Amino acid sequence: MVKKPRQIHLNAFLRNVGQHEAAWRLPETDTGAVTDIGHYQRIAQLAEKGKLDAIFFADHPALKDRSEDRPWDSLDPFTLIAALSGVTSKIGLVATGSTTYNDPYGIARRFATLDHVSRGRAAWNVVTTANASAAENFGFDQHPDPDARYARAAEFLDVAFALWDSWDDDAIVGDKAGGVFVDRDRIHRIDHVGPHFRVAGPLEIPRSPQGRPVIFQAGSSEPGKDLAARYADAIFTAQPTIEEGQAFYADIKARVRAQGRDPGTVLILPGLSFFIGGTEAEAFARREQFEDLTLPTYGIAQLSRVTGLDLSSFELDSLIRIPPRPADTGNQRSRHDLVHRLTSTEDLTLRQLLRRLSAGRGHRIATGTPEQVAATIVEWFENGAADGFNLIPPALPNSLAAFVEEVVPLLQRRGPFRTEYEGSTLRDHLGIERPAVARGAAAFSSAAE
Amino acid sequence: MVKKPRQIHLNAFLRNVGQHEAAWRLPETDTGAVTDIGHYQRIAQLAEKGKLDAIFFADHPALKDRSEDRPWDSLDPFTLIAALSGVTSKIGLVATGSTTYNDPYGIARRFATLDHVSRGRAAWNVVTTANASAAENFGFDQHPDPDARYARAAEFLDVAFALWDSWDDDAIVGDKAGGVFVDRDRIHRIDHVGPHFRVAGPLEIPRSPQGRPVIFQAGSSEPGKDLAARYADAIFTAQPTIEEGQAFYADIKARVRAQGRDPGTVLILPGLSFFIGGTEAEAFARREQFEDLTLPTYGIAQLSRVTGLDLSSFELDSLIRIPPRPADTGNQRSRHDLVHRLTSTEDLTLRQLLRRLSAGRGHRIATGTPEQVAATIVEWFENGAADGFNLIPPALPNSLAAFVEEVVPLLQRRGPFRTEYEGSTLRDHLGIERPAVARGAAAFSSAAE
Repeated sequence: MVKKPRQIHLNAFLRNVGQHEAAWRLPETDTGAVTDIGHYQRIAQLAEKGKLDAIFFADHPALKDRSEDRPWDSLDPFTLIAALSGVTSKIGLVATGSTTYNDPYGIARRFATLDHVSRGRAAWNVVTTANASAAENFGFDQHPDPDARYARAAEFLDVAFALWDSWDDDAIVGDKAGGVFVDRDRIHRIDHVGPHFRVAGPLEIPRSPQGRPVIFQAGSSEPGKDLAARYADAIFTAQPTIEEGQAFYADIKARVRAQGRDPGTVLILPGLSFFIGGTEAEAFARREQFEDLTLPTYGIAQLSRVTGLDLSSFELDSLIRIPPRPADTGNQRSRHDLVHRLTSTEDLTLRQLLRRLSAGRGHRIATGTPEQVAATIVEWFENGAADGFNLIPPALPNSLAAFVEEVVPLLQRRGPFRTEYEGSTLRDHLGIERPAVARGAAAFSSAAE
Repeated sequence: MVKKPRQIHLNAFLRNVGQHEAAWRLPETDTGAVTDIGHYQRIAQLAEKGKLDAIFFADHPALKDRSEDRPWDSLDPFTLIAALSGVTSKIGLVATGSTTYNDPYGIARRFATLDHVSRGRAAWNVVTTANASAAENFGFDQHPDPDARYARAAEFLDVAFALWDSWDDDAIVGDKAGGVFVDRDRIHRIDHVGPHFRVAGPLEIPRSPQGRPVIFQAGSSEPGKDLAARYADAIFTAQPTIEEGQAFYADIKARVRAQGRDPGTVLILPGLSFFIGGTEAEAFARREQFEDLTLPTYGIAQLSRVTGLDLSSFELDSLIRIPPRPADTGNQRSRHDLVHRLTSTEDLTLRQLLRRLSAGRGHRIATGTPEQVAATIVEWFENGAADGFNLIPPALPNSLAAFVEEVVPLLQRRGPFRTEYEGSTLRDHLGIERPAVARGAAAFSSAAE
């Protein structure tokens, strides 16, 4: 295989009518789109028209606090992306799924099926679910702490990988004359017994087109980074500056190497929010339109949840400094660290902090002309801060349409982004190989610990 | 609302390359179709072309014994039917899901989402999973007995119904100027606490187009019939003769009435397998082609599992009589009763019994011309044995294509079957109303017991 030149990878994070909390209040937004499959079909097809690597839906198995203030991730992301598989043909399909509030057999089976029905485009964004409100929908007395969640996640992934590898690629014989449909000697029980799970296997599904669905991971906590280094094919992260992006990139690639994996096969995709205008002034005016429509109640509730501080009576125009996170406890660790860092390195009022967070929630925000947005992407890509980006359109479909129509052609002209899909699977788009079947020790690292 | 004339309801049971265990061995069968989404898209569209009410996939969350002998329900049915929502627009979408090996929040969320993304075409075929091999994929020490499974199923459905009703229909306000997206006072926690589940709710999804997805149920055991009478909108059943069909029909309608429900709103759909030919002789020759390709090993393993008897060394050409089921124990109770009844009322060799079961697995088998098949349907429909049928094509796509092209026009000409879909939701097709939101005692009958 000839080594291809490195390519920018672009994923679209599709959150109902846009990631920005005020997107739904824009005059042009159709609030009915939140549960309208036609809306999601149009934005998925738009992303495919732009030759993006994948589309991606977040997950939250509970009704969020302050749902009166904005639409949220309402529809089940897996069901939604499965439905979109039928109206797209090339783009990768990433659904988030919690290892805390699912069982490994069920998840492994659903994602293997998605990989079959999408003909090799399935990916699972593995999360441990940071928000405690999910616990009471699943009969838990309390939400497990992060270390417990990550220990379960590692074993969960071991089981899922083993299930996906429980069939040899050639197990279906289809010998009509001899009356042998599959060769049972090429299908293997996994007989997993671990601290969290007992799963006999095998899966009842032939090995899928990609061998295993692609694994995405996010989270910048220590256990999150270690989990990603061990299992992930691609990593989402929130890095507001190129320097922070470079530090994270170097850190993760070193962790991947320490796991005995090739760092070139694990892609790092920081989030990128963007406000595009014909001129820089127009872009800033566009951003301001969103910020003028934000509701402080929503941002304050979010910030209070992340920091554990009650900020409901804090003056909006007073300077705020979020103290560092106490020890290694609490959920949303990376988010807490981020707002601590932001308020320690700059003087910000609460209102300014909320506006900063509402625009990108701690992600890099590119505000400018299409040329400026493209230049930011290339700068990060060429300077060891990113292998591509997780695009975070503030409003949908409009922000994504502007990106596809105005920024994508510039990236294609400069060379590091595809003008056509070269392969048909998500692994093809990402430039990562289909894994061979692995069994025994390799597939059961956590059980051996 | 003007009362419409009673209509035949037809559902297509789509099992990979056909329900008949030898379908995969026919010369024309593409064995690769088992995991090929193109195959499923074509048969779903074929069923929609035939104006059928719904398509339906079974479920089995474990690899079956004797999988070397025939293809099985490999792909996850929910994922598959969600994928098919995008390439169909009218036909109902029924996926089977186990109440034993799922949690109610997850299932309620996925089916509510399917109802949104299909624009009101979702249905859940509720099963308790009769096959014990699933237990060891989900960390169970043993498969729960039927009574335990049905008790859990009833509470599971109470929780799912309450979650689907946790939003008032008008909860989304979408007041951009006032900054109020939803009215939280119109969204209600369910705070369910029962013997099997604790679920706080609410669901994070607005009430779906059908209010609640349609509920299908099957199984002819006593607890199965009671569960169906209480919760189901439509019931699948296996009845080999019109007399047995009439007895079952009368029994279920009485049970529905005893639950305080309108018997007209609960549809009874016996299974119908069919072999169609230009002449009766051609139809029987077609059926014989399947039977000549059956593998006794498969049927014997199935029969041994259902009856608990080891039949592996029983002579194929000896007369067999299956003894009655011992007391009220064991799984697959209705199946056991059926083979007992078959072998008590007729003299059958093991080979003949296996052929009988392979053709229809205890369902009515219509073998004849299109006119004869249509006449069977109308006879059952007009004589208190059925509200329609669950069609069981022995081979796919061919048997379904023959039915759609040759039998459907006859039913349409005779009047009791639609020539066009009149509504857009599955409830519209079935002629059952969208339920109003129910809360409190009505929604929590099992918790109050």
